[in-house]
Amino acid sequence: MTKHQYVHGYGKDDSERLVKQSEALEEILHADEDFPAGTQILEAGCGVGAQTVILARRFPGSDILSVDISETYLAQAEERVKSFGYTNVTFRHADLATTDLPPESADHIFVCFVLEHIPEPEAALANLCRALRPGGSVTVIEGDHGSAIFHPESPDARHVVDCLIELQQRGGGDGNIGRRLYPLLTAAGFSEVSVTPAPVYVDAGHPELVEGFTEKIFIAMVEASREAAFRAGISDSVRWDAGIAALRRTKEPDGTLYYSFFKATAVK
Amino acid sequence: MTKHQYVHGYGKDDSERLVKQSEALEEILHADEDFPAGTQILEAGCGVGAQTVILARRFPGSDILSVDISETYLAQAEERVKSFGYTNVTFRHADLATTDLPPESADHIFVCFVLEHIPEPEAALANLCRALRPGGSVTVIEGDHGSAIFHPESPDARHVVDCLIELQQRGGGDGNIGRRLYPLLTAAGFSEVSVTPAPVYVDAGHPELVEGFTEKIFIAMVEASREAAFRAGISDSVRWDAGIAALRRTKEPDGTLYYSFFKATAVK
Repeated sequence: MTKHQYVHGYGKDDSERLVKQSEALEEILHADEDFPAGTQILEAGCGVGAQTVILARRFPGSDILSVDISETYLAQAEERVKSFGYTNVTFRHADLATTDLPPESADHIFVCFVLEHIPEPEAALANLCRALRPGGSVTVIEGDHGSAIFHPESPDARHVVDCLIELQQRGGGDGNIGRRLYPLLTAAGFSEVSVTPAPVYVDAGHPELVEGFTEKIFIAMVEASREAAFRAGISDSVRWDAGIAALRRTKEPDGTLYYSFFKATAVK
Repeated sequence: MTKHQYVHGYGKDDSERLVKQSEALEEILHADEDFPAGTQILEAGCGVGAQTVILARRFPGSDILSVDISETYLAQAEERVKSFGYTNVTFRHADLATTDLPPESADHIFVCFVLEHIPEPEAALANLCRALRPGGSVTVIEGDHGSAIFHPESPDARHVVDCLIELQQRGGGDGNIGRRLYPLLTAAGFSEVSVTPAPVYVDAGHPELVEGFTEKIFIAMVEASREAAFRAGISDSVRWDAGIAALRRTKEPDGTLYYSFFKATAVK
C-alpha cells in the first residue's frame, strides 16, 4: 500500500475523525474481548493510534506491538499513547504485505479498519498468521460501506457513498470488505473463523448517535473523499453537495441511517 | 390492499415458505417478548397463521384476536392453530386500512411482515393505535430487502432483489420499510418508539442458516416473484435465472449473505 492509495488521507482532520470514530465505537466493537496479563498483542496497522490507546487501556498487563506502514502515523500514534501515559506499547514500521514480522511471536493479533485499504488482504492475513503462535488468536474488524441504507432513500446519498467505494477500489482496497472477512480469514489459513455483524442503527430516538455516528463518523468519512472524487472525475461539486445534503437529511426527526461493521475472530 | 397487490401470492408453496420463515426466525424476532396472563393481544395481519401459532404457544394465558384481509389466509390460519390444539385464538376478517376494530380493546398489538404490503402504513398504524388501550404496547417487525448484501457482490443478484422491491412498490407496498419503522410509528401517534435491527448474517460456518435462511427464506422469497417480474416486463428468464444463480453462489464455502429485519416497540 502506498500513501496515495489511502483514501482517508493523512491530514489532521482525518486523524481527529479516526480517533473520534474509535471512541464512539468502542462498546460496539470491543465489548466482548478479554486477554490475560502477559499476552503479546500485535496491532497490525495502528494508524494514528486511535485503537492503540483503547487496547493499551483495556489490557494494561499486555505487551502491545503496534506496526504501521506510515511513519507519519506511527509518530502520531506514539505521541498519543505517551500523552495518555501508557507504557505497554512498542511501535515499529512494517508493511503488512511484505514484512517478515517475528514468526510465531504474537499471542493475539488485532486488525481494525486496515484490510479495507490493502490491495492483497489475503497475503497480509497469511503474513499475520505466520506471526501468530500456534493456538494464538486474531480479531479483525472492518466496515462495509455497501451495507449503508438510509431513510429517506436517495440516489444523491447513494452517489457519494458509491464514490467512496469506487475510490477505495481504484486504490486497490475494498470498502465492502466486511462481508468478505469469513472467506479471507479461511483462505489465509486460520481456523475456527467466526464473524459477527456489529450494526449501528440511528434514528431521532438516539440523538447521541445522530451526531456521534451519522455526522461525525459516517458523513465525515464520506466527506473526506470529496476532493479525491473530483480529481478522479467521478463527481462534481453540485452532485457531491446534493449527496452530502441527502445524507444530512437522514438526521432529521423522521430520518434513519443503518450501517454495519463486521467483527471476525479466528485461531491459528 | 387488494389481493393482486400481495407480492408473495396466496399459493400453498407460499404458505409453507411463510411458515418455515417464521419458525427459523423465531429466536431472532421474538427473543425478548413477555406478556402476563390475561393480556388481550391483537395480531394485525395474521396471514396463514405462521406467527399466530408462535404467539399462541409463547403466551398461553393470553387471549389472541388475529385479523387478516384475506378470508383464504384466515381459514388456513384457523386450521393451523386448531392442528396445534391451541384454544386461545379468535379469528376475524378485517382490513387494517379501513376497519374500525373495537377501540381501546387491546393490551398489545403484534404486526409482523404486514406493513411492507400496505399502501398506507401510516393510516393502518393510526387505526391500530385507536384499537390499543391507553398505556398498551405495540410490536412491529418488518424486513428491509434493500439491506441485503452478498459476497460475491453481483449485479445479477442485485437485479432479482431490485425486482422484488420494484414489484412491492408497484403494488403500493414498500420492501424497504424496515428502515422507516421509527418515523411511521411516531407519525401514527405512538410514543416511546424504539427500533432495534435484527440482522441475519450467513456464511459457511453456519450451515443451518445457509439452507434455513439463504435458500429457504431469502432465495425462496425472491423466487416467488419470478412470474410477476416477467408479467411486469422488468425481467426475463435469462436475467432472472442468472440472478438466482448468483444468489445461490453466496451459499458456496466462500460466500456470505447479510439481511436485516427491524423490530419496533412503542406504547400508546
